Order: sequence, then structure tokens, then C-alpha cells
Amino acid sequence: MLTSAAEGVYVICPTPFESDGRLDIASTDRMVEAYLKAGATGLTILGIMGESPKLAAEESLTFAKQVMSTVAGRVPVVVGVSAAGFAAMSGLSRKVMDVGAAGVMIAPPSTLRTDDQIVSYYADAVEAIGADTPFVIQDYPLATNVVMTPKVIMRIIEQSPSCVMLKHEDWPGLDKITTLRRASAEGQVRRVSILCGNGGLFLPFEMERGADGAMTGYAYPEMLVGVVNLIKQGRRQEAHDLFDRHLPLVRYETQPNLGLAVRKYVLKKRGIIASDTLRKPGPKLSPETIAEIDWLMERIERSQQGSLAA
Amino acid sequence: MLTSAAEGVYVICPTPFESDGRLDIASTDRMVEAYLKAGATGLTILGIMGESPKLAAEESLTFAKQVMSTVAGRVPVVVGVSAAGFAAMSGLSRKVMDVGAAGVMIAPPSTLRTDDQIVSYYADAVEAIGADTPFVIQDYPLATNVVMTPKVIMRIIEQSPSCVMLKHEDWPGLDKITTLRRASAEGQVRRVSILCGNGGLFLPFEMERGADGAMTGYAYPEMLVGVVNLIKQGRRQEAHDLFDRHLPLVRYETQPNLGLAVRKYVLKKRGIIASDTLRKPGPKLSPETIAEIDWLMERIERSQQGSLAA
Amino acid sequence: MLTSAAEGVYVICPTPFESDGRLDIASTDRMVEAYLKAGATGLTILGIMGESPKLAAEESLTFAKQVMSTVAGRVPVVVGVSAAGFAAMSGLSRKVMDVGAAGVMIAPPSTLRTDDQIVSYYADAVEAIGADTPFVIQDYPLATNVVMTPKVIMRIIEQSPSCVMLKHEDWPGLDKITTLRRASAEGQVRRVSILCGNGGLFLPFEMERGADGAMTGYAYPEMLVGVVNLIKQGRRQEAHDLFDRHLPLVRYETQPNLGLAVRKYVLKKRGIIASDTLRKPGPKLSPETIAEIDWLMERIERSQQGSLAA
Amino acid sequence: MLTSAAEGVYVICPTPFESDGRLDIASTDRMVEAYLKAGATGLTILGIMGESPKLAAEESLTFAKQVMSTVAGRVPVVVGVSAAGFAAMSGLSRKVMDVGAAGVMIAPPSTLRTDDQIVSYYADAVEAIGADTPFVIQDYPLATNVVMTPKVIMRIIEQSPSCVMLKHEDWPGLDKITTLRRASAEGQVRRVSILCGNGGLFLPFEMERGADGAMTGYAYPEMLVGVVNLIKQGRRQEAHDLFDRHLPLVRYETQPNLGLAVRKYVLKKRGIIASDTLRKPGPKLSPETIAEIDWLMERIERSQQGSLAA
Repeated sequence: MLTSAAEGVYVICPTPFESDGRLDIASTDRMVEAYLKAGATGLTILGIMGESPKLAAEESLTFAKQVMSTVAGRVPVVVGVSAAGFAAMSGLSRKVMDVGAAGVMIAPPSTLRTDDQIVSYYADAVEAIGADTPFVIQDYPLATNVVMTPKVIMRIIEQSPSCVMLKHEDWPGLDKITTLRRASAEGQVRRVSILCGNGGLFLPFEMERGADGAMTGYAYPEMLVGVVNLIKQGRRQEAHDLFDRHLPLVRYETQPNLGLAVRKYVLKKRGIIASDTLRKPGPKLSPETIAEIDWLMERIERSQQGSLAA
Repeated sequence: MLTSAAEGVYVICPTPFESDGRLDIASTDRMVEAYLKAGATGLTILGIMGESPKLAAEESLTFAKQVMSTVAGRVPVVVGVSAAGFAAMSGLSRKVMDVGAAGVMIAPPSTLRTDDQIVSYYADAVEAIGADTPFVIQDYPLATNVVMTPKVIMRIIEQSPSCVMLKHEDWPGLDKITTLRRASAEGQVRRVSILCGNGGLFLPFEMERGADGAMTGYAYPEMLVGVVNLIKQGRRQEAHDLFDRHLPLVRYETQPNLGLAVRKYVLKKRGIIASDTLRKPGPKLSPETIAEIDWLMERIERSQQGSLAA
Repeated sequence: MLTSAAEGVYVICPTPFESDGRLDIASTDRMVEAYLKAGATGLTILGIMGESPKLAAEESLTFAKQVMSTVAGRVPVVVGVSAAGFAAMSGLSRKVMDVGAAGVMIAPPSTLRTDDQIVSYYADAVEAIGADTPFVIQDYPLATNVVMTPKVIMRIIEQSPSCVMLKHEDWPGLDKITTLRRASAEGQVRRVSILCGNGGLFLPFEMERGADGAMTGYAYPEMLVGVVNLIKQGRRQEAHDLFDRHLPLVRYETQPNLGLAVRKYVLKKRGIIASDTLRKPGPKLSPETIAEIDWLMERIERSQQGSLAA
Repeated sequence: MLTSAAEGVYVICPTPFESDGRLDIASTDRMVEAYLKAGATGLTILGIMGESPKLAAEESLTFAKQVMSTVAGRVPVVVGVSAAGFAAMSGLSRKVMDVGAAGVMIAPPSTLRTDDQIVSYYADAVEAIGADTPFVIQDYPLATNVVMTPKVIMRIIEQSPSCVMLKHEDWPGLDKITTLRRASAEGQVRRVSILCGNGGLFLPFEMERGADGAMTGYAYPEMLVGVVNLIKQGRRQEAHDLFDRHLPLVRYETQPNLGLAVRKYVLKKRGIIASDTLRKPGPKLSPETIAEIDWLMERIERSQQGSLAA
């Protein structure tokens, strides 16, 4: 089960499709193995970057089962269960926990506005998934349009013992990590795990502010693992050097909407998945874009940092 | 099958729940019969006001089957299939058409912005539901945040022969009806049915502008039927007199979020459904609100216009 | 100076323009006199419905001075000073207070999200206008996209003694009035004046919930005055009867964007202003719309309730 | 006067304030000289990053005059005139053109939705500023929430000969440049200058896609100048090498809201402006943030690329 002690790199998995749009099971297995080999300490599936809203309910479950069976308990698997309603959230949550998920992740719906609405939404969500299901708060205003202050996050943590992690991807958000860690140090709130998303764009600083690791899907996850470990070992310059070599592609991958297509293309080129197909509605890469990604990959790999699929 | 000739009043059905939140089948049957008795020429289920996002996939289908079986072909049933992704939309659409739906209704996702994005979304949606499934465009910017110009609606109509109806609830939107009807008269676009929503707030004027009827769920649907018929008979003063007697409650019911709770309370008080339970997240009626609804109902019924459940 | 004891009807004034778009001073004077004759206990200028963002800074001041000089102290004048920045807000506020405004009104900018952001925005605004300038909180989520809980409003009232009024136009918002009045009764928060906006759409109920009056610009303000007085006298049926006769036009006037054009047309037709010109960008009334307004006015006036300009 | 042939780097100027918030004239002069020395081919003032909404009308004009007088015709100066209404836009535009501005820049208001609304807004804006005033379209959806397709931009260019430039900061937006350049090459639309914003985050690729330069305010503008020149000379690897050395700080500076505070801090530390004061509402840099900026600056300057103020 997922706990507040979680750390390292939980790689956000895309959902691999065949070129005709069906789930690609073989690529799923290959991807899981590649991520574990890269040093993932956990996996996260069916998030925004997993195209989860584009899957039918049965497909979500099929995919979750496949990942869980390939992982076979080697690392915890977190499953995104954000849904338009609590019935769907409850159903998916129960089913994935039954087949071995370690916990679930919940982003707030974009209609929430006030502090109280957000806190009360998470209370209802906990009722829907069950108080014994560990869950992750996804704090991603750029995608959800919901802004959570540190105070709101602390209220959610305090009201639900099953809240074990914050997926931090507020932007800008470095001071939020500092505030939350200080509050825990001062005994104002229980300490939960903080893993950072946002494509990894600020990872070295996030670690230095007190994060426990990353939860994001950059197509060279071994870089994320390397940065997290170097920072933990206090090797700051090396961590930043490693990160900065990848930053041009990290930045390219954080382009809204386009980013997932970029990521799948890189994963395909690295031999990790067979096809970079996205389900509709989704962007198509232009020849110019492909040439730019090739250029960025070449520059990274020339600097000998890319060895995951090798 | 739903066609461009549809007219009259398609009553938007709420989804009746037991007080513990389960589907209430007995109330569903009673509601269907009450609506047909009130003069409904069609029914619409699983729309925004049907709490469809709060239903699990199986529940949606169970409810749709129940309605269809009770209706037993007496009027066409339109089913809302708006979904976060095309896989879910496709699945639900196919299943409800199989059990006898006359057509489906699709609202655009709130992420769409440009004219081309909207038109292309509907092209993809038609691919998902199948080109032989008649569909309704739901044009409801207040809820979807998507603004469709008449030009965009005309492009969707032209690109898809299976588009047979516009559920018109833009606000303000009277000139849009005039523009679309003029465009059809001048041969610029195929004529489709226009049924109006928005709680019925502008119904008499909408009819006079060229709408074919209403598709909304006001809790005294016999008023909607009456107004539509009076306008068609050219009895303008009577139509407005009838409408204006109900306007205080119509207005009360169009309060965002609260409106559905108001509507269910009225339906319960009229003996049409057993419980006014809403699923979470949903508002609760305060005692003050209940007293206000009672007052409004009393004023309507004193004027002898309320006789549906009698 | 505006105080927490303010009550009655503060009519929201449109800004009358000549047909070429220049300020129309003669109409301004005529309008002020008509509103005072109708029973206004105050006037509010340069609000959203006063097209204030479309005025140059000098024009705003010219218009404010003209109104103040015509009013000549007979009733308090509140001036909208909402602005994109505090320098502009501070400048306008100081200038209008210097020429005799009773207080200013401030709506929150649409970028605010969290409770703390809203509360802190009002603290900064008070610094900008000066702690001795009485101000009104404009709570109008439909226009501002900012949602204020009762708790947030109470925090603003408590932090600033110069906060003397809430312009209440949340929607739905009746329970908010009840909550705030109860909190004052229980000593949790200082009692401020509550005047209701939102086109007057819920005025009788708002009065019954504890509001002190209306601050809105419906084109027959004598109806607003009548309803407020009847409710205060406990003549409930008469209050609702009077209100309901006007509701069809009230509803027509609350159409976003179009509403102001409707209102100016009615005021022109009643002989109160010379031209119904709106500055760009603004809607134009179609012939069909004009015919509908004429119809609604005729139905109201036939019921002998319209006698302001007579 | 600004023409479609504009190229190079138009540096977006912040508005320097004294620590008490007043305009800082001495820093303004120093900043202008530093930017010109860095190779700026133009300057842009009173944009979003110039805190223009926080300036009183008189202050905007004072600042514009000061910049123009210091520049003394050495390079063109573009002035942001986006405003809530056309009266303010017209007034500011006329005044700054009178004192020597080369052109103005206009961002669309966030209320625009449909293609036609956007195109028609620019037609009205041209009427407000005068058909002989050269203007720049600011296409910045992240800040404005208005999405303009290439087709919409082309319609604006075609309807107004005075449209001479696109400030491109759509995100992702590389394919948009390609599309517009292809359309010009194929004779579908007049070729205008494209300068890129968005903090410079994609500058080398933007140049390769056909942009003519940058219009952004990164605190080491000599890097922007260097990249633009290297790309024009076909020295691709060197351009990317130079850019990538700065990317960690570029990325840090593109954090919404916080970015301007970061930029002003760097400019202060480089001796270009005296104080990094922002007007309210604005973020304050935490000690942790300052330490991170120091770290990033040190890494850049160690690589000997930072020599502007030296």
C-alpha cells in the first residue's frame, strides 16, 4: 500500500496504443520493464497523460490489470481515478485496488472555486473510494484551473488519514513545497510524501525544497532517477548538470497538448513502445516538429546520458 | 428515429433516486407516465439535468433501458451521450441505440475554443457514434463555456447529415434562432429541428422566432406544452398569459446548481417522484428555500394551471 | 457619507451617450431627476452597466461631477472604481470623493481564486482608496468569475471598518443573505447594508431574506421602490403581484450583454434618455428584439404600473 | 514607423520603480542604454510585463515619454495600448504616437470567444487607434485566454493594412509560425513581421520556423540577440549552445506571475535597475527563491555569457 514514506521516481505511464487505436499490450509490458530498469520506484497509470478520459471503462481496467500483472509487486502502482462523478470514481477505485493498486490519485474538477468547496470535494471523494484507500492529491492548476493554497492542502491532509501524498505541479510552486515542509516541521500538519510533476521542469529545485522525488513521465526517466539520487547524495552541481543537459527536451515536452505526442514519439524512437498513436482528439506531429525532436534527442544522446532502452 | 421534423415538447427527465442514492425505478415509471400524460412529444434522458456524470456506466444503461421500456415506443427518446472521451461516447451511444433510443445529444467539451475546433470535434463525434445515429447539438454556453456562432452550427449541420436537431440554449439567443431560420429559408443550410432549453425562460419568444418547441425539464411540463400549442395556433396573448403565470417558478428553477434540487422538490411535491434526493456533489434546500418554492407553487396552482399529476 | 444603515433603492445609472458616442449631459440630468422622482434613495454610477471601462478617465470624472451636481446632495451617490490596477482605482476614488461621492464600489478582478487572495485584494484596495472612504463589496460571480463565500465576505467586513455595504448579486444567492444576516444576529460579524443587484430578478425574496433594498438598474425603478416598500410594510402578496407583473421584462433585461441595450431602449422610449447608443463593443438590437421589448412594455403599462416618466 | 520588415530583438521593458513604488527615471534611462548596448533593434514598453495596468494614465504617458526621449530615435519603440475600452486605447495610442512611438501593440480582451468576435474586435481597435497607426497583434493565449487560429490572424492582417507585426507567444506555437510563413509564401496573405515572446523559451526553433526575431524581456537580452544573429548566419549548433546555457534561467523566469519579480531581481543584480520593486498586487521573492536565482546567474556567468552591464 502507498504510504507517506513514498519517494524516488514514480513514472507516469502513457497508455500505448496500436496504430489503429487499440490497447497495445506488448508495448505496455516493454514499457513497464524499461521504466523499472531505469530505476522507477513506482508507476502511475491512467492519469491525464495516460489519456484516461479517452478510454472506455473496460479498457481502463484491462490496462490497469496488465500493468499490475507485469509489475508483479516489484513497485507500487498508483492509479488515476479522477472522474466527473463519484459513482465512476468509486467503481474504478474499488476495481483497481482489488487487482493490486497501491493507491489512487484524484484531481479536483475544474468547477471548484472556494477553499471550502475544494476541501469538501476531497471529503466526498474519500467517502467514494473508501477511507482505507490511500490517495494522492493532484495539485495541477494549469490543467484543472483549481488553485489550492497550502492551507487547503493541509486541511485535506488533516481531515483524511488516507491522504498520503501530494502530487505537486502548481506553477510556480517552489515556495509551496517550502511552506508545506515548514508546516510539517513545526507540527502543524502531518508529513505526507511530495512527488513533483509538471514534466520535471523544476525537479532539482523541487528536491532541494523538500520534495521526496518525482511523479512525471519524461521520456528519459533515468534522468529523473539520476537527479533525485544526486540531490539526495548532496551532489548538487552534478544533479544540475545532468538535468540541464535534458532541459531542452523537458521544456519541449511540457508544451500543453502537444507534449504527450512528443513523449510518445521519443518512447517509440527509443524502442520502448511500438507506435506513437494518440487517440482523438489529439495533435499530430508535423515533419518540422519531428525534426526538432530528433535534433534534441541527438544532442542529449551525444552527451551520453540516454541509455534506458539500450 | 429522430428526424429534422421533430417538434413539440421533449421533456428533460431528471434521474430519480431513492433517498439512499440508488436508482428509483418506480418513480422513473411514474415520471414517464406523468410526462406523457402532460403532452410530451418526446423525452430526453441522461443530460446535464439528469445527473448523468454522477451515474456509473451500468447505471446509465439500466436507467435508459427502463425509460425506453416504459415509453414502449409511444414517443422518441433522446439520450445524452456527452463524455470526456470518444470511447465512452461511442460505447454508450451504441448501447442506447440498440435498446431503442431515437437519437443522441452531444454537448461540446469546455476545452474547445476556436470555430474549427468545434466543427472538427463534431466530425470526430459523428465518427464515434456512427454516421447513421441521429444526433442533437447541445448549444449551451452558460454550462459548457463554448460559444458557437450560427456559422459554426451551419457548418456542423452541413458536414453531417445525421445532425437533425439543435438544442438551443444560448443566452441571449433569440437572434440566433432568427439567423438560423433565415439561413434555411434562403437555402444556405438544411433546416433542422430547433428545440429550446434554458429552463424555458424565453419559450414564447423562441417559438415566435421559429423554434419547433422546447426541450427542457420545467417541473410543470404541461405549461410548456400549452405555450407551444397556443403559439402554434396563433393565440399569442394566451400563450404569454399562461407562460407569465409560471415565470416566477421558471426563474427560480433556472438558478445554476440549485435549479435541479428545486425541480426535484416540485416533482416530489406533485407526487411524480418519491424522493428529491440528488447525488453528491449537489446542493441541499434550506428551509427558507423550501418555503419559497411552496409559495411559488401555491400561487401557480391557485391560478388553476397545475394539473399534471392530478 | 455612505453608512451601514443604507437602504431602499440605489438605482444603477447607465451612462447616456449622444448617438455619436459622446456623453449626453442633458439626458444625464433628465435621468437623475426621473430616478429621484421614482423614489431612489441613492444612485450608483460607473458600474459595469455604466459602461465604465469604455470611458476615458476624464470622461468618467466629467460624468461623475455632472451627476453629483444634479443630485446636489439629495441622495448619496456611489461610484464604481473597479480598475485593473490600484493606481487607477486610487486616482478615481480620490477624485470622486472630492466632488461629493458618498462612497465607492469595488468588484474583484477575475484572476482571483483562493479565499486568501480575495481577502488580501480588498485589504490592498482599502489602502489604495484610503481607510476613510466607505466602500461597497460587489459580489457578482456571473460577471467577475470570483466566488466569495459568506466567510470571505465576513473576513473583509472585519478587516475594514470602511466596508459598509454588500452589493449582493451572487446567483443563486438567497441563502447567502440568510447566512450573513444570521451571522450578524449571532454577533459573529458587524452588520452591513445589503443591497441586491442581479437585475432585480429575485428582489422580493431577497428582501424577505434580510436585504435592505436593491441596487440595480431595471428600467422601471419605481417597481423596485414599490416592491421594497411593500415588503417592508409586510404586504407580501401585493409585493409579489407588483413584481410578477414586471418579471417578463426584468428577465428580458437580465440577458448578459444584451441587457444594457434593452435597458437603454426602454429608457429612451420612456423619454428618460435621448438615445439608446452603446459604445463599442456592444450589441445592436434587431427589429425582432425591439418588437419583443415593445410587446413587454405594452403588457406592463396596460397593467398601469408604468408611470415614471409620465 | 514600425513596418512589416521589423526584425531582431525588441526588448520588452519592465517599468522600473523606486522602492516606494514611484517611477524610477534614472533606472529607466540606464535600462534603455543597457538594452541598446546589448543589441536591441527595438524596445517595447507598457506591455503585460511592464505592469501597465498598475500605472495611472498620467504615469504611462510620463514613462513612455521618458523612454522615447532617451532612445532619441535610435530604435523604434512599440507601446502596449491594450485597454478595457476603446476610449482609453484611443487616448493612449494617440498620445504615444504624438511623442514618437513607432507603433502600438494590442492584446485581445479575455471575453472574446469566436473567430468572428476576435476579427471584429481588431477592426474596432483599428478604428480606435486610427488606420495610420502601425500595430502589433499580441497572440498570447496563456495570458489572454483567447485562441487565434492562423486563419483568424490572416483575416486580421488582410482587413487592416496597418497590421505590421505578430507578437507570437502561443504555446505550443511552432507550427503556427510554419503555417503563417507558408501562407505568405503561397500568396494567401501579406507577410508581416513575426517576433516571438513567451520569455524566449523556444527562440532557436522559432527562428528556424521563420520568425524574424524576438520580442521578450529575458534579463540577459544579449543572449536573445546572439541567438537571433547566429541562426541568421546559419550557425545552428552555436545558437543552440548559447541558448541552452541560458535555458535554466529562461525557464525560471517564465513562471507565471513570479517571472517578472525574478526578471527585476536579475536586472537589479546586474546593475541595470536600482530596485526590484513591483507594484501591488505582485509576488515577493522568498530567500529560497533568491538563492536559486543567484545560483542560476552564477552558472550562466561562469560560462562567460553574461556581459551586458559590464
